[in-house]
Amino acid sequence: MKLVFLGTSAAQPTAERGMTCICLVLDREILMFDAGEGAQIAFQKAKLGWNKKIKIFVTHLHGDHCVGILGLLQTMSLQNRTESVDIYGPTGIEEFIAANLKILNFGLTFPVRITRIKEGLVFDDSGYSVHVCEAEHSIPAYSYLFTEKDKPGKFYPDKAKALGIPEGKLWHELQSDKEVTIDGKLVRPSDVMGEKRQGIKIGISGDTRPTEKLVEFFKGCNYMTFDSTYSDTLRDKAKDNYHSTAKEAAELAKKAGVSNLILTHFSARYEDVAELVSEAKTIHGFVTAAKDLLEIDIK
Amino acid sequence: MKLVFLGTSAAQPTAERGMTCICLVLDREILMFDAGEGAQIAFQKAKLGWNKKIKIFVTHLHGDHCVGILGLLQTMSLQNRTESVDIYGPTGIEEFIAANLKILNFGLTFPVRITRIKEGLVFDDSGYSVHVCEAEHSIPAYSYLFTEKDKPGKFYPDKAKALGIPEGKLWHELQSDKEVTIDGKLVRPSDVMGEKRQGIKIGISGDTRPTEKLVEFFKGCNYMTFDSTYSDTLRDKAKDNYHSTAKEAAELAKKAGVSNLILTHFSARYEDVAELVSEAKTIHGFVTAAKDLLEIDIK
Repeated sequence: MKLVFLGTSAAQPTAERGMTCICLVLDREILMFDAGEGAQIAFQKAKLGWNKKIKIFVTHLHGDHCVGILGLLQTMSLQNRTESVDIYGPTGIEEFIAANLKILNFGLTFPVRITRIKEGLVFDDSGYSVHVCEAEHSIPAYSYLFTEKDKPGKFYPDKAKALGIPEGKLWHELQSDKEVTIDGKLVRPSDVMGEKRQGIKIGISGDTRPTEKLVEFFKGCNYMTFDSTYSDTLRDKAKDNYHSTAKEAAELAKKAGVSNLILTHFSARYEDVAELVSEAKTIHGFVTAAKDLLEIDIK
Repeated sequence: MKLVFLGTSAAQPTAERGMTCICLVLDREILMFDAGEGAQIAFQKAKLGWNKKIKIFVTHLHGDHCVGILGLLQTMSLQNRTESVDIYGPTGIEEFIAANLKILNFGLTFPVRITRIKEGLVFDDSGYSVHVCEAEHSIPAYSYLFTEKDKPGKFYPDKAKALGIPEGKLWHELQSDKEVTIDGKLVRPSDVMGEKRQGIKIGISGDTRPTEKLVEFFKGCNYMTFDSTYSDTLRDKAKDNYHSTAKEAAELAKKAGVSNLILTHFSARYEDVAELVSEAKTIHGFVTAAKDLLEIDIK
């Protein structure tokens, strides 16, 4: 899987940075977190594929985080998409989509399914789950947590053969974490397989102050993207506007034991975000600054 | 004055072309015709100025022609704009703006005044007027006509002096097209001034088929931008989708006696629009293809 940043600017765009949009590209699906104006243009540049399965998770209903959904839906219709699109967001998301679909004469070619989120689990299948936590912003806002399901450990055919288990159905059962019996002898999956591989955890903060609740929510994330609107010299402004400084993002990442911190949502005042990265690095060892079209491979 | 093209693609954006947005930049005001997604980004690139007086005229309520208004309003608020913004558009425009202002928590810093258009005169002051005409598209759509007021001819001080008229109030009256009397003798403005200069007429088609009604509407335009979605090899598709080919645009321009034709709103299928320009040039002598950030000085 990979994280692809389609827009990394706060509130208003710059020549280099579009408005917030982060895609988590899985094998067969794209999870998009926010879609500010211009998302479809960056989506096209990143060549993510118009007909892929897609879920859009909106953190809050500020225009720079969700207006891009409209263009995405219109262009997907022009591409004759048939696969449904799932949209998750706070109260008001249904009205935003429904009102614009009605007024703007979209002629949708596919179903749009809308889920109003609240804290807790919002999606779960055999591959991954998505949880939601309240953030602290000027309007109701939420952070998201993607948790990949744990994957079975490596299967060792030699060990299975040594235990007299023939290739086929019994191998498959062991690989599916089931015990099997051969010649009256019990064989456990752990006898022929390595350690389970823990699923990847990725946190997406949206716009927020750093909070203790988010420290808990993002605990042990392998990757976390976090609101880094300001340099720490503007910590008061960050408080007033319900955003975070890059250093605050790093402090939260450290407390939460996050392995890799990705700073994003930079104020348009910063042409160069090196200063913000430096500040964060005084706190946390693994800091990356997002930029538009940056791809981060996650293994 | 100048025409500045902020977006020249039809329906969906390409790497080179954003969605429809055309600005007519006057001395003290910007008239924007349509504002597709990304308009604010191009507006910024073109350095048109966030605090200038602005009127936005929407041709029809397809997302690619009006979604960009939302980002413009949000960013103007972030820039602490205080000057009001006037928006003109077809039925539904109030609902589009009002619903999104309500849902997206804009925190507007300035008044937005909305006018629902119908055929005829929609704006008039001492400097110019704007007229509206029904276009022919898949949904209710309109074309716009900007007409600059005729300007007084050049004033010749030497002639005024020779006629014994002292500099000051009487000169001003003559310059304001009023007759004056000096020593019992009548002096007409035409005695001291050159020919009136005819105001510039500029037509903006929006999305439309070419129609006889539009031939009348655009009669004698100095400049006209016209829907040129397709090459003439796709004339049937143009009919089906209620658009025009570049050649049809040229045919209409010729019939209407338009001096300068500007092709725009090109289908994303054309990486190079040279073919469309060639087709139009077989009909009309003065054809320009718009491209993003193209500026055309109008004198």
